[in-house]
Parts: sequence; structure tokens; C-alpha cells
Amino acid sequence: MEPEGHRGVGMAPGRLLTLADGIFAIAMTLLVLDLRLPDMTSTGAVDLLSRLATLTSRFGTFVISFVVLGVFWFAHHQTFHFVVRVNRTLVWLSVLFFMGVALIPFVASVLGANPTDPIALTLYGGVIGLLTVLGYVVWWYLTGDHGLVVRGLDPTLVRKVRQWIAVGPAIALVAIILAFVNPILSFLIYLALPVLFIAFNPVDSYFERLREGEV
Amino acid sequence: MEPEGHRGVGMAPGRLLTLADGIFAIAMTLLVLDLRLPDMTSTGAVDLLSRLATLTSRFGTFVISFVVLGVFWFAHHQTFHFVVRVNRTLVWLSVLFFMGVALIPFVASVLGANPTDPIALTLYGGVIGLLTVLGYVVWWYLTGDHGLVVRGLDPTLVRKVRQWIAVGPAIALVAIILAFVNPILSFLIYLALPVLFIAFNPVDSYFERLREGEV
Amino acid sequence: MEPEGHRGVGMAPGRLLTLADGIFAIAMTLLVLDLRLPDMTSTGAVDLLSRLATLTSRFGTFVISFVVLGVFWFAHHQTFHFVVRVNRTLVWLSVLFFMGVALIPFVASVLGANPTDPIALTLYGGVIGLLTVLGYVVWWYLTGDHGLVVRGLDPTLVRKVRQWIAVGPAIALVAIILAFVNPILSFLIYLALPVLFIAFNPVDSYFERLREGEV
Amino acid sequence: MEPEGHRGVGMAPGRLLTLADGIFAIAMTLLVLDLRLPDMTSTGAVDLLSRLATLTSRFGTFVISFVVLGVFWFAHHQTFHFVVRVNRTLVWLSVLFFMGVALIPFVASVLGANPTDPIALTLYGGVIGLLTVLGYVVWWYLTGDHGLVVRGLDPTLVRKVRQWIAVGPAIALVAIILAFVNPILSFLIYLALPVLFIAFNPVDSYFERLREGEV
Repeated sequence: MEPEGHRGVGMAPGRLLTLADGIFAIAMTLLVLDLRLPDMTSTGAVDLLSRLATLTSRFGTFVISFVVLGVFWFAHHQTFHFVVRVNRTLVWLSVLFFMGVALIPFVASVLGANPTDPIALTLYGGVIGLLTVLGYVVWWYLTGDHGLVVRGLDPTLVRKVRQWIAVGPAIALVAIILAFVNPILSFLIYLALPVLFIAFNPVDSYFERLREGEV
Repeated sequence: MEPEGHRGVGMAPGRLLTLADGIFAIAMTLLVLDLRLPDMTSTGAVDLLSRLATLTSRFGTFVISFVVLGVFWFAHHQTFHFVVRVNRTLVWLSVLFFMGVALIPFVASVLGANPTDPIALTLYGGVIGLLTVLGYVVWWYLTGDHGLVVRGLDPTLVRKVRQWIAVGPAIALVAIILAFVNPILSFLIYLALPVLFIAFNPVDSYFERLREGEV
Repeated sequence: MEPEGHRGVGMAPGRLLTLADGIFAIAMTLLVLDLRLPDMTSTGAVDLLSRLATLTSRFGTFVISFVVLGVFWFAHHQTFHFVVRVNRTLVWLSVLFFMGVALIPFVASVLGANPTDPIALTLYGGVIGLLTVLGYVVWWYLTGDHGLVVRGLDPTLVRKVRQWIAVGPAIALVAIILAFVNPILSFLIYLALPVLFIAFNPVDSYFERLREGEV
Repeated sequence: MEPEGHRGVGMAPGRLLTLADGIFAIAMTLLVLDLRLPDMTSTGAVDLLSRLATLTSRFGTFVISFVVLGVFWFAHHQTFHFVVRVNRTLVWLSVLFFMGVALIPFVASVLGANPTDPIALTLYGGVIGLLTVLGYVVWWYLTGDHGLVVRGLDPTLVRKVRQWIAVGPAIALVAIILAFVNPILSFLIYLALPVLFIAFNPVDSYFERLREGEV
């Protein structure tokens, strides 16, 4: 016998979302710890401006990584908008996804210190690729027959989101291959990720069409 | 066909606010990492009191930055009080705003170590100025015709909040110019920001007038 | 004219509580950053056990500070249980309170490295004292005639909580005075704070009496 | 007289869960701070790949600790799913539990730097053991006659969860004993914890049986 009716149907997504938001907020803010002014003796620079100039590539990696984490947070927010219940498998796929998120400050730090090293670019691309593959698996599992999302979710939206996420691993792969040919181009490829994800966002377009239809 | 009624109208602001509160909480608490007692050998100071004394300007920057982040958090809280829905553009303006928030511990650290250096003061003022400009853009976008805020929001309040936020970039600009003339005065200008924002808070006054009208 | 009814009566305490929980969670977890194994060369210790032994006083400060932050979090939770609305003054008293919370990892670090130094003990006691004084002011303001707490709050409870919080500054003062006479006793006094706050908790007793009365 | 009806019955678990999620999110993300590339001079390694290779055991500890924290978070989520009210004793048992969670980044850091040292393995196993013992005590207290969980909670589920948690201290004890015999095997034992906790999860099975029964 289940106590107090609907409480027992399963676990609501609330706490998984709080954990997700906490991990994203911390990973995004920890990125700034990599921006540390070198002391004067180690660089030989006398004035503050030249010491700040040594942080240029680290600052570039900070900006890209912050925006990339913003992309993943928003994609997480949008796909979990339709979730009504979590189960064991979804929690463990999420924990793996969070592990990738927590690794971003590390790979960003390695890349910021070695911006044109193919190994650093591969490491960064590897974590991004892992996150997009996990995102794909999560969406595929969510929209399977497990009763985790709202009933009657539009199949066209399900397919469009799947195609949208699939662009991620492709970009990561291109960036990794380019790392060994043209490191600077590889670095810039990561900027394409936010642009593509923001410009071609099927969930946002879906809501916009819905609202126009309601008028 | 939209599943389960109102869920599909758009995305509620809940998770964006959780992310915002998380990023503010972490940025505010990370400020303390800059307060580190120097070891005895590097300073030549023998007793604890003189080692603590070396942290004076860092402590001043800690207090100012904590209060400044409090000002931005409260302004964010007050302007988002009227938000009922978020969309893609609002999320990306918010991510840029959060990037500025996450940069505060870095520019505070540079300023704490170089409290009278015009470059450090300019850097600090630049991030504060960026945050106030972004705050202005967010409020302008929110109150535009995008259906993001409550219906029938008082136009006088909308205008007063806009004017209130516009004081921010002006203060930042004055502080940056003063940095090259009188660094200590420039440092003190940042204290004016909390005072002005707290004393002339149109949202709080608006609620107070409303409550008095209800009696 | 106020849009959409009750939304405009004022600001709900939700986000202030999220910020509070975030700052407490981070301050509590940052305490662990002070537990760092010294490298072999700097200590001359060969095995891991003797290197861990150098952390004894830091570990003691970690435990006390974690429990002290737990005390303040629980007191915050209990006093804000009755809050229905926040205003400008309450937000700014809270920001000052949070600044004290964020300083705990710093003063704990100073105390952990100098456990019997009267200055370190005074600094620690000063922040604890500041937090209890701010807690007293917050409770006094909350229960004043500002419409911030639930209607009909039991005046006996209001008075008992006031007396309960007033014990805090007294303990901090005793610990600071003792710091110059008997540092080890001063260190131990901070352990009395959790014990007293846990044993004589008027809010918990109040709920227990209420439930018994309902039977 | 209790103000505004049900508010006074006791304290809802909301804020304790927010604090828990915050502490777990921070502890999980702080693990990454232990992954720091050594500088070239200290290792003698010339290329990035060999410098990354020095982080192998730290990376292994990162993955295990992240998954272990995921296990504890999910167990906390599942057991607190049935909680409707918190009291003083539950809060203080939780604060002790959180202290153990906050210690994980420290013991993980010690283990990552000394992966085959029996002392490091014992320290790690000790904190894991403490967390499982505290988890056992929390569940025992929750399901006692204190009115903290939903009415009519299935006694079979209560017993099964108790047995499930009791496996934890047993695993920790085996790992600690093995640390002095075969350190590598001891290290691997910690991997059994997630596997066992995920595979034999009575709460998830309980929900699955419930849903099948409803069809």
C-alpha cells in the first residue's frame, strides 16, 4: 500500500535539477580561479599591464568555457523541461554528465596554459565530445518508453532535439582533428558550438510557434 | 498539440534564478580566498598582527566587492521579481551577466594587491561598468514587448528602474577617469554605488507605496 | 494598479533563503581547503602518518567551524521559518550577516595555523561575536512592526529567541578575554556555542509543545 | 495559539535539502581542484602528455570519489523522499553527515597523491565508513516514532533500506583491512560500493513494483 497517494509514483526531478544547477554554477565560477596574476619575480614584468597581458590566452579560454558551460546548462534546462519523474538510470547518466561538467575547469586550465598544444586541444575537445554524447544518450533515454517525460510529447520535437544534439560530437571531432593540423583554427571551432546551439535551438522555436498558434 | 496544458507556454524563470543565486553565492564566498596570511619568511614579519596588517587593502577590497555583489544580487532579485517566463535571448544576456559576476573575484584580487594602481582600478571599474550596462539592457529587453514580465506592469516603475540602473555606468566611468588623477578617491567612489543603489531603490519604494495604499 | 494580485504585495523570502543556503554550503565546504598535506621537503617528515599529524590543529578548527556554521545555519533556518516577506533593510542586514559567514573560512584558517595565538583567537571570536550581534539585530528587526513575519507570532517565543541569541555575543566576549589568559580554554569555549545552542533551542521546544497540544 | 495553521506544525525539509544539494554539488566540483598540471621544472617532463601522465592516480581517485559522492547523494535523495518534517536531532545528524561529505575532497586528495599507501586508503575508507554509519543512523532515526516521514511507510521497505545501507560499513571495513595486505585490491574495493548500491537499490525497485501494480 502506497502512503499519501501521488508521492509514491516516483521521484520528482526537483533535487536532480538543484544538484545540476549547483554543479554548473560552481564549475562556471571556478573557471575564474585560473585567472591569477603572476608575481613579478617569475615573469620579469615590471608593470601591471604587462603582467595582465600574460593572462590573454587564459582569459580567452575562460570566456569560451563559460559560454560552453552556458550552452550545456541551457540545453540541460530545455531537455529537462519535459521531465516529470527521474529513475535510477537517469540519475546515473546525469552523474556521468555532471562529471564531465566538473572536468571543464581542469581542461580549460590545461588549454589556457597551452593554447596551441594539440594535446591540450584534444583533451578539451574530448570532454566536450563526451558531454554531447552523454547529452544525446540522456535525450534518447528520456524520450524512450520509461514514463519520464510529459505525455504526448511532440515526436517532431523529439527528433529535432536529437539531431540538434548530434551536431555537438561532430564539432568536437572536427576540432580534435584540426588540433594536429591548425591549432588556432581548432581553438576557434569551439566558438562555433555556442553560435550553432544558440542559432538553431529547436526547443525555443517550438515554444515560439506554440505561442503564435495560441494568439 | 501541446502536452499537459500550461507547461508548454514557455520556460518558467525558476532554474535561471537558481543558477543566478548559485553564481552570486559562490562569487561572494570565493572573495575570501584572497585573504591568505602570508608566511613568515616572505614578509619578514614576526608576529601575527603585523602579518594580518599586510592584508589591509585586500580586506577593504573584500568588503567593497561583497557589498557590490550584494547590490547586483538585490537588483537582479528585484527586476526578476516581475519575470514570468524566460526565452533564449534572456538566457544569453543572463549568461553574459553571470560572466561579469564570476569575474569580480579576479578583478577584486588584482585591486586588493594593487589598490592604488590606475590599471587595477580601471579593470575593476570596467567589470562593474559592464555589469551595469548589461543590467540596463536586460531590463530594457524584459520590459519590451516579449511577454516575459507580468501583464500591466506600471510604466512609471519601468522608467524609474531604467533611470536607477543608468546611474551605475556613470559611477563606473567617473571612477575610471579618477583612477588616473586620484587613485584613492577612485577606490572610494565604488563605495558610492551601494549607498546610491540602497538609498534610491525604486522597486522597494514602489512596494511600500502599494502597501500604504492598501491600508 | 498592481498587476496580478498578490505578486505585488512585496518580495517573498525564497531567493534570500536560496542565497543563504548557497553561502552556508560553500563556506562549510571551503573549510576543507585548509586541510592540505604539507609536502615532504617542507616538513622533513618521511611517512604519511607524521605528515597527517601536522594537520591536527587545523582539523580541530575544521570540526569546530563546521559545527559553528551548522549552528548559525540552523538558527537562520529557524528564525526565517516565520518570515513571509523581505524588504530592503532585511536584505542588507542579511548581506552583512553573509559577509560574516564568508569570513569564517579565513579566520578558521588563521586559527588552524596559530591555535594558541591570542590574536588568532580574538579574530575568530570577533567574527563569531559579529554574527551573533547581527543575528540579534535581524530577529529584533523581523519581529518589529514591519509586517515581515506571520501574523500572531507568539510574543513569548519572540522573547525567548531574543534571549537565546543574546547568549552568543556573551560567549564570544568570554572567549576573547580568555584568549589572553588561557588560549587553550578559549579555544574550547567555542565548543560551548553549539552545545548551548542545540540544548536550549526555543524554536524546537515550541514546535514540540505545539504538537503535544494537538494530540 | 499557532499562527496561520499548518506552518507551525514543524519545519519542512526544503532548506535542509537545498543545503544538502549545495554541499554535494560543491564537494563534487572541488574534487577537480586536485587535478593540477605540475609545472615543467618540478617534474622534468618536457611534453604535455608526460605531464598529464603524472596525474593518472589522481584522475582515478577523482572518478571514484565523484561516483561515491553520487551514490551518497542518490541514497540521501531516496531516503529523504519520504521525509515530511525535520527536527533538531535530524538537523544535527545531517550536519555531521555533511561534514563527512565535505571531507571527501581532502581524503581523495591524500589518496590521489599516495594511491598505494595503507594510511591513505584507511583514511579514505574511514570517511566512507563514517558516512555509511551516519546514513544508517539517520534512516533508523527517521523511521522511528518521531513523525518525520509519511504515514504508513511500508515496513518491508524500511527494513530493506536498512539492510541496503548496512552493506556500506562492511565494504569500508573490508577495504581498510585489505589496505594493509593488498593496497591495489583495496583501492578497487571502493568501486564495488557504487556497483552494489546501484544494482541493489530497494527504493527504485519499490517504485517500479508500485507502478507495475498500478497498471
